[in-house]
Amino acid sequence: MRRFAADRARRAVAASLRGAASSRSAAPSPLAPAPCHPAPPVGTAAALARTMSTAAAGTPPVSLNTINPKVLKCEYAVRGEIVTHAQNLQQELQKNPDSLPFDEILYCNIGNPQSLGQQPVTYFREVLSLCDHPALLDKSETHALYSSDAIERAWQILDKIPGRATGAYSHSQGIKGLRDEIAAGIAVRDGFHASGDNIFVTDGASPAVHMMMQLLIGSEKDGILCPIPQYPLYSASIALHGGSLVPYFLDEETGWGLEVDELKKQLEEARSKGITVRALVVINPGNPTGQVLAEENQKKIVEFCKNEGLVLFADEVYQENIYVEDKQFHSFKKIARSLGYTDGDLPLVSFQSVSKGYYGECGKRGGYMEITGFSPEVREQIYKLASVNLCSNVSGQILASLVMNPPKAGDESFESFMVERDGILSSLARRAKALEEAFNSLEGITCNKAEGAMYLFPRLHLPQKAIGVAQAAGTAPDAYYAKRLLEATGIVIVPGSGFGQVPGTWHFRCTILPQEDKIPAIISRFKEFHEKFMDEFRD
Amino acid sequence: MRRFAADRARRAVAASLRGAASSRSAAPSPLAPAPCHPAPPVGTAAALARTMSTAAAGTPPVSLNTINPKVLKCEYAVRGEIVTHAQNLQQELQKNPDSLPFDEILYCNIGNPQSLGQQPVTYFREVLSLCDHPALLDKSETHALYSSDAIERAWQILDKIPGRATGAYSHSQGIKGLRDEIAAGIAVRDGFHASGDNIFVTDGASPAVHMMMQLLIGSEKDGILCPIPQYPLYSASIALHGGSLVPYFLDEETGWGLEVDELKKQLEEARSKGITVRALVVINPGNPTGQVLAEENQKKIVEFCKNEGLVLFADEVYQENIYVEDKQFHSFKKIARSLGYTDGDLPLVSFQSVSKGYYGECGKRGGYMEITGFSPEVREQIYKLASVNLCSNVSGQILASLVMNPPKAGDESFESFMVERDGILSSLARRAKALEEAFNSLEGITCNKAEGAMYLFPRLHLPQKAIGVAQAAGTAPDAYYAKRLLEATGIVIVPGSGFGQVPGTWHFRCTILPQEDKIPAIISRFKEFHEKFMDEFRD
Repeated sequence: MRRFAADRARRAVAASLRGAASSRSAAPSPLAPAPCHPAPPVGTAAALARTMSTAAAGTPPVSLNTINPKVLKCEYAVRGEIVTHAQNLQQELQKNPDSLPFDEILYCNIGNPQSLGQQPVTYFREVLSLCDHPALLDKSETHALYSSDAIERAWQILDKIPGRATGAYSHSQGIKGLRDEIAAGIAVRDGFHASGDNIFVTDGASPAVHMMMQLLIGSEKDGILCPIPQYPLYSASIALHGGSLVPYFLDEETGWGLEVDELKKQLEEARSKGITVRALVVINPGNPTGQVLAEENQKKIVEFCKNEGLVLFADEVYQENIYVEDKQFHSFKKIARSLGYTDGDLPLVSFQSVSKGYYGECGKRGGYMEITGFSPEVREQIYKLASVNLCSNVSGQILASLVMNPPKAGDESFESFMVERDGILSSLARRAKALEEAFNSLEGITCNKAEGAMYLFPRLHLPQKAIGVAQAAGTAPDAYYAKRLLEATGIVIVPGSGFGQVPGTWHFRCTILPQEDKIPAIISRFKEFHEKFMDEFRD
Repeated sequence: MRRFAADRARRAVAASLRGAASSRSAAPSPLAPAPCHPAPPVGTAAALARTMSTAAAGTPPVSLNTINPKVLKCEYAVRGEIVTHAQNLQQELQKNPDSLPFDEILYCNIGNPQSLGQQPVTYFREVLSLCDHPALLDKSETHALYSSDAIERAWQILDKIPGRATGAYSHSQGIKGLRDEIAAGIAVRDGFHASGDNIFVTDGASPAVHMMMQLLIGSEKDGILCPIPQYPLYSASIALHGGSLVPYFLDEETGWGLEVDELKKQLEEARSKGITVRALVVINPGNPTGQVLAEENQKKIVEFCKNEGLVLFADEVYQENIYVEDKQFHSFKKIARSLGYTDGDLPLVSFQSVSKGYYGECGKRGGYMEITGFSPEVREQIYKLASVNLCSNVSGQILASLVMNPPKAGDESFESFMVERDGILSSLARRAKALEEAFNSLEGITCNKAEGAMYLFPRLHLPQKAIGVAQAAGTAPDAYYAKRLLEATGIVIVPGSGFGQVPGTWHFRCTILPQEDKIPAIISRFKEFHEKFMDEFRD
């Protein structure tokens, strides 16, 4: 019974291999200005190198000339050159503590609260700890170590997991019972129905964004409208998937306002170039810009997407980070539903993450996307993409369900939970205000109001001499400023050029996350550096 | 100071957008035969639809005609049609337990041990539970609930994490101290040096595979040599990244042997078609085929990669799953080093996962890749890809360090750990043997030896009549068999066509993972179905 028609079959299969030529032109980045880490040329020479056999003597099998040019094009400034430089300085400090004019590196480059001392929310960690070791639930000693509602919640969660198996791959969208809980939390937040069937739980929000970009981008003729400045995950993901970033500019003068006229103009310009714009990315509260959109503005954005046939990608990971009394978070789904749009009217994806909010559980990699308005066939394709990676991590899934359904009044942990939660949020608000005022007090810096998120994005009005020196060194002036700041103070910020900005303007992103007792010292270190810098380069 | 040259700048940026035409031809799948889920046509009509404005009245913004055609092409049978069908039957069973001729669904489609009742290793879960809630470490009651070496290990791990912040994003390669521990485990396993700088900790092995495919594949002219049959993650990832799968056939007659002559032949055939083959994928122990490569064979494979200038992707996630006395696992890095090849000679990537082995912690999404032989510039690009997703989940990182450095003789948990570990592995070996013998006892089934991994891949010698009926229904004959088996017994297997097979041959993949006490009943259910099926279609 073991006879094969192997050879003939192999020939048949091999014959189905393709040999079509591909278009490999290197296109310029739509982000302005030139990136800080210039990519090596990937033009004709690279194309030639790629067609030659890599087995040629002395040629390494893999080189910058032979790898995927899309990877070379991709930039991710939040963990870019400046951070690598900071990590090197940190190693230097460890070896020789007196070698530098500061005694610690302050990572204000990334929204990573617990790395700067924020403590995790006790209740969430109790539940995770119990779910990791369910044998504890049967032991009486456990009651001495864990709050009773955390124990009860762990039981409830385990009962939602088939076989109580926290170590099994789950459904590729996430455990159904946890998705239902997330959906219930969304319904309470918005006052509109949500379904667990529409939730895809993911390892943080980033993989969800990649998944949707992968779905919509087939070639460079597929465009995605993105704010400038933007969170560079979007530009990186669009570059990796080979699409076109269609920029729309936020208006710094109106507090980083998002004007629908600007969207329309950029959409039309892109279309006139043969680009089919597939989706609009809106980040609210804004990253890196910290603004919170007004309800009226959101309505216009929804109408725009509906009229233009665009998918709306709503990055809503900072939904709990709002620091001003006159602003409130409204999800785009709530806005769409309040306008009377139903599931069939508008494809909408809302991204949420356990890394932000008051929880700040970045290392747990939990998050979800809620997708509405897609046809069953397209949803099946999204499910297939999720299934190729099997599922997201179960602890992150549990945490995502907890942040969307935290302790309620009457629960044993409720009061201590609220103390922790409000303590973090009110401290963040004070820190945002203090930094905003400090930046605005300096010569050559203007800074918009920190309404939400975890960042400030001040504008640097640099002396011409400083710009000249930076450019002579082949560096963007804001990158030069950031490097000098790091070397003088140990403070790590991200140059505005990593996020995109109106050409000829310079900014930086600085998180509001250092612990409150450190803020005065940071401000004075910053101020001292800045004044010296301005004096050094005064025109 | 708030003056902008906004309009001019916007024009400049928008002008940099590209409008180049892309090549969008739909290429046939190199996997034989036709996939079970035929993708809708993505030819001229689709191309036309994509160039039209999606805002046209009545056209949904997203449809199968407008999404990325690479997504449509991608197939992932392990969670494909048959599993969806099983999930529907399971719901039916819950509603109406007497509606089907069986009382439970047995998921033998996927290597997911804990979903079928395998218990997690206690020591690992103790450590995870403590790291999730470090406040426990300061409490005396904790000693009543956790073993003392788990407590000590949790302290050691926390000391490796900057600020003991398990909720912070880590270094994008993973926490340095944990990577060093993984490297130490590799060095003990191989007897050759390993470095934590070469480790990238990832959410399971799948994202690591995607990352490397993304790095190497720029277009359909980039080929990856993959075994047939293969684990469909590879074909899915190659399809998603737009590359060409260059198949090489494992030889069923020699126990799924991997012949270097076959590699050479397929490599040359691909090159003659203008394809630059970038890498060779080897899965050892084999998935779905369960064979363990002999050392001599591995040496020839390494020499082949060295001579041909290929990256060697060594999928070694089943390194602890070996069930026969005369075979042993050797990592490809150990083989390469024992041949005298150093870091500069050969780019080599080894994938490992916490989902397999005796641990089977699929839901934790832990894993790593060890990369050697890449230039610093290329490594920087790999790091950049890792950084775009920030980091893998910290619990998974901790678990990856634990499986590579489990309790040692003398530790309090050592004995109980060894009992759990050996209990699982010896039971898996017995189950593999029992299923292998059962399959071989049946008319029309031949099954190779289960040397390792978690699967059997028996060949079905189906009656011509059954093949005819399946084909008339537009189904691959093995898919038809799998569907009939599911509907008669509740047993879920994956048709061989999902993995690729020599055309005209039919197989299925079945895991060895149901708990041991269930194996006799499974065998008798299977046997009864199979005999009836053969009788029904006897030629």
